[in-house]
Amino acid sequence: MDDDPSVWFSDAINPNFVQQYRVRGTLFTGQTRYQSMQVIDTCDFGRCLVLDGKLQSSQRDEFIYHEALVHPALISHPGPSSVFIAGGGEGATLREVLAHRSVKKAVMVDIDEEAVDVCRRFLPSLHQGSFDDGRMELLHLDARKYLSESRQEFDAIVMDITDPVEGGPSWMLYTREFYRIVADRLAPGGVLAVQSGPCNLHDMAVFTAINCTLREVFPEVFPYAAVVPSFGGLWGFTLAGRGLDPLTLSAGEINHRLSTRVGRELRFYDGMTHHGMFHLPRYLRDAMRVRKPIITDQSPVFLS
Amino acid sequence: MDDDPSVWFSDAINPNFVQQYRVRGTLFTGQTRYQSMQVIDTCDFGRCLVLDGKLQSSQRDEFIYHEALVHPALISHPGPSSVFIAGGGEGATLREVLAHRSVKKAVMVDIDEEAVDVCRRFLPSLHQGSFDDGRMELLHLDARKYLSESRQEFDAIVMDITDPVEGGPSWMLYTREFYRIVADRLAPGGVLAVQSGPCNLHDMAVFTAINCTLREVFPEVFPYAAVVPSFGGLWGFTLAGRGLDPLTLSAGEINHRLSTRVGRELRFYDGMTHHGMFHLPRYLRDAMRVRKPIITDQSPVFLS
Amino acid sequence: MDDDPSVWFSDAINPNFVQQYRVRGTLFTGQTRYQSMQVIDTCDFGRCLVLDGKLQSSQRDEFIYHEALVHPALISHPGPSSVFIAGGGEGATLREVLAHRSVKKAVMVDIDEEAVDVCRRFLPSLHQGSFDDGRMELLHLDARKYLSESRQEFDAIVMDITDPVEGGPSWMLYTREFYRIVADRLAPGGVLAVQSGPCNLHDMAVFTAINCTLREVFPEVFPYAAVVPSFGGLWGFTLAGRGLDPLTLSAGEINHRLSTRVGRELRFYDGMTHHGMFHLPRYLRDAMRVRKPIITDQSPVFLS
Amino acid sequence: MDDDPSVWFSDAINPNFVQQYRVRGTLFTGQTRYQSMQVIDTCDFGRCLVLDGKLQSSQRDEFIYHEALVHPALISHPGPSSVFIAGGGEGATLREVLAHRSVKKAVMVDIDEEAVDVCRRFLPSLHQGSFDDGRMELLHLDARKYLSESRQEFDAIVMDITDPVEGGPSWMLYTREFYRIVADRLAPGGVLAVQSGPCNLHDMAVFTAINCTLREVFPEVFPYAAVVPSFGGLWGFTLAGRGLDPLTLSAGEINHRLSTRVGRELRFYDGMTHHGMFHLPRYLRDAMRVRKPIITDQSPVFLS
Repeated sequence: MDDDPSVWFSDAINPNFVQQYRVRGTLFTGQTRYQSMQVIDTCDFGRCLVLDGKLQSSQRDEFIYHEALVHPALISHPGPSSVFIAGGGEGATLREVLAHRSVKKAVMVDIDEEAVDVCRRFLPSLHQGSFDDGRMELLHLDARKYLSESRQEFDAIVMDITDPVEGGPSWMLYTREFYRIVADRLAPGGVLAVQSGPCNLHDMAVFTAINCTLREVFPEVFPYAAVVPSFGGLWGFTLAGRGLDPLTLSAGEINHRLSTRVGRELRFYDGMTHHGMFHLPRYLRDAMRVRKPIITDQSPVFLS
Repeated sequence: MDDDPSVWFSDAINPNFVQQYRVRGTLFTGQTRYQSMQVIDTCDFGRCLVLDGKLQSSQRDEFIYHEALVHPALISHPGPSSVFIAGGGEGATLREVLAHRSVKKAVMVDIDEEAVDVCRRFLPSLHQGSFDDGRMELLHLDARKYLSESRQEFDAIVMDITDPVEGGPSWMLYTREFYRIVADRLAPGGVLAVQSGPCNLHDMAVFTAINCTLREVFPEVFPYAAVVPSFGGLWGFTLAGRGLDPLTLSAGEINHRLSTRVGRELRFYDGMTHHGMFHLPRYLRDAMRVRKPIITDQSPVFLS
Repeated sequence: MDDDPSVWFSDAINPNFVQQYRVRGTLFTGQTRYQSMQVIDTCDFGRCLVLDGKLQSSQRDEFIYHEALVHPALISHPGPSSVFIAGGGEGATLREVLAHRSVKKAVMVDIDEEAVDVCRRFLPSLHQGSFDDGRMELLHLDARKYLSESRQEFDAIVMDITDPVEGGPSWMLYTREFYRIVADRLAPGGVLAVQSGPCNLHDMAVFTAINCTLREVFPEVFPYAAVVPSFGGLWGFTLAGRGLDPLTLSAGEINHRLSTRVGRELRFYDGMTHHGMFHLPRYLRDAMRVRKPIITDQSPVFLS
Repeated sequence: MDDDPSVWFSDAINPNFVQQYRVRGTLFTGQTRYQSMQVIDTCDFGRCLVLDGKLQSSQRDEFIYHEALVHPALISHPGPSSVFIAGGGEGATLREVLAHRSVKKAVMVDIDEEAVDVCRRFLPSLHQGSFDDGRMELLHLDARKYLSESRQEFDAIVMDITDPVEGGPSWMLYTREFYRIVADRLAPGGVLAVQSGPCNLHDMAVFTAINCTLREVFPEVFPYAAVVPSFGGLWGFTLAGRGLDPLTLSAGEINHRLSTRVGRELRFYDGMTHHGMFHLPRYLRDAMRVRKPIITDQSPVFLS
């Protein structure tokens, strides 16, 4: 007799492929002003944040996603002091950013205050108290509006927002027009890191479109990927900047920078992982050589 | 965009047929001394009690099951004063029993104290305060042991226990030996009501075996059934006694007894429902004419 | 190790309640001019016809549905000679109609010729050769158009069509205007039998609306129900006519008529089953007392 | 209205995590002497081979698995002429092996003749005619028995067998005793490639145990991984040999060898992919530093 409950969370990676997680319990179910929201406790992945029906972060493997999103950008920079985070409501991107001792100021703009509050309450292992760090400033605004009106410059900008879905809260933060605003807000030598959606055989349209769009705005653009099981396989990221070259950093140099700059052990990222992430499999590189549509305010690209 | 959560409870009616309920939240998940236990809140059936992975009662349709279990027995009796309930942890069988003004004493024996406590806390719409009724006595003992040692007699005995599954807590309460103990504890004119498992095309082996086993012990045995959607279709019950004939009661007489004896409106049961329940479809009657194994302590019958 | 395949057919009884059948294989998947269509072989219910994603007939329990649809109407008639069937593509309604020796002519109008052809090929246990019976005439037309232009009269008209869903092929055959056409085509003493959708707690809106709509057109209307496990519980039917009273037929008289008129044993229907079906549970009768919307061409009622 | 069928294949990656594929049809369901077997056609992954309920190969992404299994071994060898394949019933490993012009002889030993026959018939895009190549010899024997009795030597041995599950047909091909037999059959400079099971956070016990066990037998052992979506994430492989060093081959040298040795374009594997596969993420390397149990005939390790 199976003692585990037969309650399952179904995450449709696409209409023909679904991942199901056995659920131990539900901690929160509600509707914020911007999205539906749940916090569920799964047997295999621990607590999970679900927004608009899609799993956003699992306690078990979120370290892969958040370390992959933050550290390549910050390690590639000679000494990042100011960081801007768009989205990131769980506080885990913030956690990784603040792990860098060089960071003196982190501005996090997440439009959904209710969602952030629920995360603070139910996902403490994700934020690990980072919301209370004196170096951080948290604002509940439209990140695009904030950046377009701000005069600040940042050494790193980290886009940790939900995927671009029609009617969702995020698609205006994936367009060429938006990236031009971002480019203006990067300090000299500044780096942009963008979570870039799935890059599986099934579905890499958003990933390749983000790459092409960034190439319109930035001289150097580097796609990379990491396996996040709860996201259904390989997940895409992109670094963009001016004079940036993450591939020339040796694994040894990366490990040296980590040991001097970051105050704790990481679990996913180090010099060898860094190079693994930037060595994309051939089918992905082939797909990216085909010219893809540019994402603009007038012609967005949505995740199917 | 669908706002309802994609969390589902799966109830395997049998290994090849599963019913899934969308879940709004989980209220309790745990393991008592006797069984695993959950209280979940479903979108369609409200709060549901789940024991060892099987849905036992749903807020939405429990009234069908509990009215069908209790009232045919009590209405068939000229004026039931003392009632014994085996199992019935939700308190809803007790609720229906206590609705009869003639009942002066109801003894409920449910072995699982923790389960009863969780039901009292999380399923108030099921017990509706019946645990606080001065006429009831609640004991957490083995019902078989209690009855075999007791010298009391009851006008009605209601078996509201989980299905007989191998290794489960209930199968010893479905055997010929047990029913002989029950027969000894019935007062003259007393009636036994037994929840008797599924009686669908798929699976009517327990239902027909209970019927045959009761015929070994009681001169009058009447199988009947009601549709309980959350139980996967038609559900079986059996009345047994001495000098009992529920079919000769006219619908009008039943309605008259209800209006004088029961202090509130019922939703499922009345004279017409009564006769509908005892008119089983032909394939069930045919199946019951075939001689079935008798359930004994030595050769139990389990739900597959 | 489980040898059964882990392939499942999911039938959404409603958006919050799903039934899943383990699948041994698929025999046909396609799209006719009117609907998507599959024939699948399930472990528990045998071969099943699926139209637009909804299970229509299973080899295992179709006898319940088809006997319940046909025999109350034909047995209530003193000697039905001519019968009209709308829909019924599986040929199983035809099979039950032709079992009555008094029937000299059966006209079946099913708009979807491809669907009928697939059923003839893959579901032989349903039609059992009835398409080859010399008494039957098969037409692939719109049943409403056919009846409105025909001058024939029928002793029984059997509506065996898919549920009224928006955009589906059937909803125009559930309206008051349609039933007036039907009333014109019934011979004196003629009986109409209508499959009337689910009548579960979840969803009885179509059932009760059909009942109210028929009352606008026919002096006698009798709702009844049978448990069809593969349809998710209790399924509704309605008899309508002039001078009809199925409740006054005794079980003995029904059994006598069956033995003299029908050339083979039935599995579901007989005199006792007949009375069971017309004794609806109280909550259904209560729901039907509330006045429901009338279904008209201008204001149809759809299954949710 | 959704025209796609609601038929799903459920693959339990583990008891708490399930992947579901929408199914267009089933082509074969049966039981061979060794295992249950199905060929299903999925909407997203095309035709899939399922053995004992687990997806083994999908038409859509099998190229990743098979290129990852074969080419690192064969490219690391200066000029492989003779290759032994254990398992590989789909013929796709054979296809990749025979793509190397240097290969003069490929011996494939798969115990399950019926399974191979079904694959030849229903999965032509996997074998692509490789069973008809004059260089290959196909035997239906126990691979362990064959190798232990053979006096042949091979330049490469490729273990393409099902995961070690209790009671399954493969676990005796993962033990130290077996690898000693293999080591004896490798020609000087010969390379062993072993499919090594999942290497996800969830479940890397088999992967790490294979790695440790191989280290007991071979001086050089190199674990690597590739993302195979239909296998639920990252999948492990291991190279083993004497004097082997796949990491010192530059991407350019690999691409050069491919262009001169392999007669067609690959889709997954090239020099950059090679280096990506051998750069495992940190959490995997950390897990492998912990000493794991050695797999022996007496103390096997099974996939949970």
